[in-house]
Amino acid sequence: MDGKTSPLAVKLPELPPLAGVRLGAAEAGIRYRNRTDLVMLELAAGTTVAGVFTSNRCPGAPVDWCRAALRGGQARAVVVNAGNANVFTGRAGRETCAVTAAAAARLAGCAAEQVFVASTGVIGEVLPVDRLTAALPALHAGLRADGWEAAARGIMTTDTFPKAASRVAKIGGVAVRINGIAKGSGMIAPDMATMLCFICTDAKLPSGALQALLKKGVDASFNCTTVDSDTSTSDTVLLFATGQAKHPRVPAEGGRVLGDFARALNEVLLDLALQVVRDGEGAQKLVRIDVTGATTGRSAKRIGLAVANSPLVKTAIAGEDANWGRIVMAVGKAGEPADRDRLSIGVGGVWMARDGGVVPGYDEAPVAAHMRGREVAIAIDVGLGRGKATVWTCDLTHGYIDINGSYRS
Amino acid sequence: MDGKTSPLAVKLPELPPLAGVRLGAAEAGIRYRNRTDLVMLELAAGTTVAGVFTSNRCPGAPVDWCRAALRGGQARAVVVNAGNANVFTGRAGRETCAVTAAAAARLAGCAAEQVFVASTGVIGEVLPVDRLTAALPALHAGLRADGWEAAARGIMTTDTFPKAASRVAKIGGVAVRINGIAKGSGMIAPDMATMLCFICTDAKLPSGALQALLKKGVDASFNCTTVDSDTSTSDTVLLFATGQAKHPRVPAEGGRVLGDFARALNEVLLDLALQVVRDGEGAQKLVRIDVTGATTGRSAKRIGLAVANSPLVKTAIAGEDANWGRIVMAVGKAGEPADRDRLSIGVGGVWMARDGGVVPGYDEAPVAAHMRGREVAIAIDVGLGRGKATVWTCDLTHGYIDINGSYRS
Repeated sequence: MDGKTSPLAVKLPELPPLAGVRLGAAEAGIRYRNRTDLVMLELAAGTTVAGVFTSNRCPGAPVDWCRAALRGGQARAVVVNAGNANVFTGRAGRETCAVTAAAAARLAGCAAEQVFVASTGVIGEVLPVDRLTAALPALHAGLRADGWEAAARGIMTTDTFPKAASRVAKIGGVAVRINGIAKGSGMIAPDMATMLCFICTDAKLPSGALQALLKKGVDASFNCTTVDSDTSTSDTVLLFATGQAKHPRVPAEGGRVLGDFARALNEVLLDLALQVVRDGEGAQKLVRIDVTGATTGRSAKRIGLAVANSPLVKTAIAGEDANWGRIVMAVGKAGEPADRDRLSIGVGGVWMARDGGVVPGYDEAPVAAHMRGREVAIAIDVGLGRGKATVWTCDLTHGYIDINGSYRS
Repeated sequence: MDGKTSPLAVKLPELPPLAGVRLGAAEAGIRYRNRTDLVMLELAAGTTVAGVFTSNRCPGAPVDWCRAALRGGQARAVVVNAGNANVFTGRAGRETCAVTAAAAARLAGCAAEQVFVASTGVIGEVLPVDRLTAALPALHAGLRADGWEAAARGIMTTDTFPKAASRVAKIGGVAVRINGIAKGSGMIAPDMATMLCFICTDAKLPSGALQALLKKGVDASFNCTTVDSDTSTSDTVLLFATGQAKHPRVPAEGGRVLGDFARALNEVLLDLALQVVRDGEGAQKLVRIDVTGATTGRSAKRIGLAVANSPLVKTAIAGEDANWGRIVMAVGKAGEPADRDRLSIGVGGVWMARDGGVVPGYDEAPVAAHMRGREVAIAIDVGLGRGKATVWTCDLTHGYIDINGSYRS
């Protein structure tokens, strides 16, 4: 956080209060000075919860804690700290989670298993949990229904702007709201980063239906984005439903009545996921990759991610070079079914390569102009089937090396 | 090639003549000016051949040609050009291979199917094959037994130094020689790069035994190295045995009699593979990653490559930061069996993290000194089994961005 905001930053949207949620931030001094680094959410009794976590095989202690807590399906509080990830901290790390949850449970008047914890920051240093528990009572006393912006700012680490999204949906004709905040900028940053996302709704939803919606939504949003291919040990997305809205009862399995809610939730997830990419370390350009014609949707996504993770594609984009040869290479390295002679590559709406060769006399001027913009669109038609997917990434610049290659302080 | 030689460069070794091989280089003016860009090897009648190629699903036309030619098991000539990869060039690309092979076959007095071709350079531009065939007769007339250095230089593209290796082995008590040359520096470079390797021996070896030895040797050398995780469309390793040495007959299946030969071949392959990593685009440090304690050797190799390909690990090394937290992350993201609480990480011979936590009071001074050197050794003990592997990479620096992120000229 050197004060330079990403050129791809978006403005913080308005986040209206949401029935059943009070939240806020405090300065616990865990690592940072003169900024908030501890966030708490208190949730109304009866709140259901769903969660999706990192696929990393060496997850942090908070991820273990949340996975276990999720089995109860009920949530009353969330505690998040920035500056220390509580990862690879052995027994101390597990105890930190338990102590934090117990302290928050006492304040919220609930069981420790109804408290969710998340940490982001440096790996391998024991979290000074005393500072955290010391700051909690005052933080809890000051929780407010309009504390969303404070919470969005308090969970930031190397983020250059706070990230939030809000949508309204209807369930059985009754309006419900979804508010979400997120942080993240590299998968693991110089010393601190990771992707965390907390979403709340006032809808009353069974935890099973909530989990199914979240899993599907994350697969099409956060799981379709990459900054640097590195998967954090702490990635966490939690969705809470406070049940304060007065809509018709939703059956356990969810179903059709949640169609509009799913649409709004997916919008919130994608909005937040793209904000994380926009804040990608050193990012100067947001890149959208549309893959069509793959043998399956899964194959299309893998091809898209191979292109999105290719250092040679990402550096070419940084150089504003529509280097479709590198895109051909990246499609081929994905290991998915592909046929060089049926493959087409387009940039900014112009097909540059088609059917195994360059498109004779394609117009380079609009392609060059497109590459100079802040948002780059790449189209890949594999030419084999009907599988499609869209993934997003950012370019790979000197800024990324500056942020991640500097001496650890 | 801006004239700046890699700080990790090694001196070109002496390459004695090898019975049955004559070679040389010429200026065909395919893309470069005032430098050689066309190389030819002529091989004695009876030469057997083995080959290993890119796993990229969109290979270049020369790779298709070589795969087909390999079925005959016999080789009389090799033609290599630098500056144009003849990739994604459709029917013209296939014709270029056929025309090149036919021209070389006429000069060498053999069938076109006994000629192997390889190209490296820009993708998607039709190779001006007329310039190539026009230069071949004079090149062929000037082939020499001592043309190894000329050949090593003629195949370079973004390479900053020529790459060669030579070893002697015994088969049934009789000395044979193995000479090899290679080129490569990024998997696919700004406009030109790829990995090519040509190895010759005067041993008399059945093509089946030769193929088995080469496959195994490449798996433990080139396939254990990565510069930027990007897999070229043109990667080619060819091994030729001219059969001029007077050693006892080797059975079709090879076997024990080839033990020392396999040792020498593996040394040549690893030597050349590491020279390619040393010339990795922007590389300032050569990184060796030893993985032990994985469930299988295959799992160990995947974990090693996940670490070697992690941008966050590679930028940390560029910053001379022994950031073991990022190594933990990369081990976890490999998707292979791993247990955070059994994992150990060491750098420069010092264990920094062990059994799920930092090693209390480990000595940072020798680690910091090691990180400042040109060669960095990382040790990862997964703590689960007996699988092990070693992989090599280089750091990720501003130089990589400069080389690959500049506007295409």
